[in-house]
Amino acid sequence: MRIGYGFDSHAFKPGVPLIIGGLPIDYPEGLAGHSDGDVLLHAITDALLGAVSAGDIGTFFPPSDPRWKGAASDIFLRTALEEVATAGYRIVNIDTVLVLAKPKIVPIAGDMRARVAELLGVSPRDVGIKAKTPEGLNQDGVAVAHATVLLEE
Amino acid sequence: MRIGYGFDSHAFKPGVPLIIGGLPIDYPEGLAGHSDGDVLLHAITDALLGAVSAGDIGTFFPPSDPRWKGAASDIFLRTALEEVATAGYRIVNIDTVLVLAKPKIVPIAGDMRARVAELLGVSPRDVGIKAKTPEGLNQDGVAVAHATVLLEE
Amino acid sequence: MRIGYGFDSHAFKPGVPLIIGGLPIDYPEGLAGHSDGDVLLHAITDALLGAVSAGDIGTFFPPSDPRWKGAASDIFLRTALEEVATAGYRIVNIDTVLVLAKPKIVPIAGDMRARVAELLGVSPRDVGIKAKTPEGLNQDGVAVAHATVLLEE
Ligand SMILES: [Mg+2]
Ligand SMILES: [Mg+2]
Ligand SMILES: [Mg+2]
Repeated sequence: MRIGYGFDSHAFKPGVPLIIGGLPIDYPEGLAGHSDGDVLLHAITDALLGAVSAGDIGTFFPPSDPRWKGAASDIFLRTALEEVATAGYRIVNIDTVLVLAKPKIVPIAGDMRARVAELLGVSPRDVGIKAKTPEGLNQDGVAVAHATVLLEE
Repeated sequence: MRIGYGFDSHAFKPGVPLIIGGLPIDYPEGLAGHSDGDVLLHAITDALLGAVSAGDIGTFFPPSDPRWKGAASDIFLRTALEEVATAGYRIVNIDTVLVLAKPKIVPIAGDMRARVAELLGVSPRDVGIKAKTPEGLNQDGVAVAHATVLLEE
Repeated sequence: MRIGYGFDSHAFKPGVPLIIGGLPIDYPEGLAGHSDGDVLLHAITDALLGAVSAGDIGTFFPPSDPRWKGAASDIFLRTALEEVATAGYRIVNIDTVLVLAKPKIVPIAGDMRARVAELLGVSPRDVGIKAKTPEGLNQDGVAVAHATVLLEE
């Protein structure tokens, strides 16, 4: 078995689409970033890459490379899944936390879980989606994601 | 086996009792929150729920619900333990980090570990309690908790 | 098996050597702290200690103790490795994330991985080194490290 952990953050920005966990969310602001800013898929991608010691999202997709401007983040995730498969491992389960002031995640957590599971090629029962507001942290304009993953041979 | 990760934060507030890990701590400030603000039990609760993909503390105990005003957080933990048991799993071990400027945790870490272990129904040897000050983070008025858990069938 | 998680942060400070993961890095600022400020080794040390429920870096090496002033952090790591061995466990793999605005980690991630693996006495294939910039977090003057570890008997 192997363990991995990923972290990411992106600032909210008016006038961009909001996509978290591969799920388009109806909201007046999105997440700034070179790609689509999908903070959750980025954290999961890094957790997978880290678990097989294959670098990180920046190694494979340098933010300076114009090819990834506005890119849908499932491209990054797919690369990480290939690295996991090449190393001879598969996902046991994955658990995540989003830390953001808004929008509310509880009403859409089920859809997000289904979407992330679909992108990972696992059962929704093997994906945890949780959310917290950043109490006391002065981070109301940011979305943060933590992801942890357990792999087996 | 399954992995889970939980995060929580609460701001310090004068004139409320301080309770961390179910342990009352003699200190002039406590943690603000709808419940008793027990940042550590909340992070552990979420790590357990996430490991069995059963939602999060906000799914079970909406902060808008007046029933949980001032609630002792072991109620939340108990629900998470039931979800873990229902899913057919038990705790292997749990490890945590508190990030807070004060009070000092080292002198009370042993008591806190015993209390958390008691609430979880595990041996203290299967509970890690650690603490850091938030160096450089401008978070001196906040307590942050990270919790990670390993489950087995 | 057992799981551990460690967190650390240190502020950047001009005129001190920068050492991360035991690797000296050519950079005009270093990390402030009582020891050499090696945020990554501190997080890994805590993850190892937490996994075997053996306290934390502050239990073994109180920052108030003048002996650890400017200390190379591999001393702390060695103590944690002894605790892991004494408890009858060995490292399966370890995964980490550095969150810092600068310097760039990608060009030195390979060297850092080799150095951390050497200090841990494991293969580089069992060490993950990843990095993120703190987008939106107002933490440009700080280095943060997260480390997660999986142990087996
Ligand atoms: Mg990102
Ligand atoms: Mg809470
Ligand atoms: Mg430190």
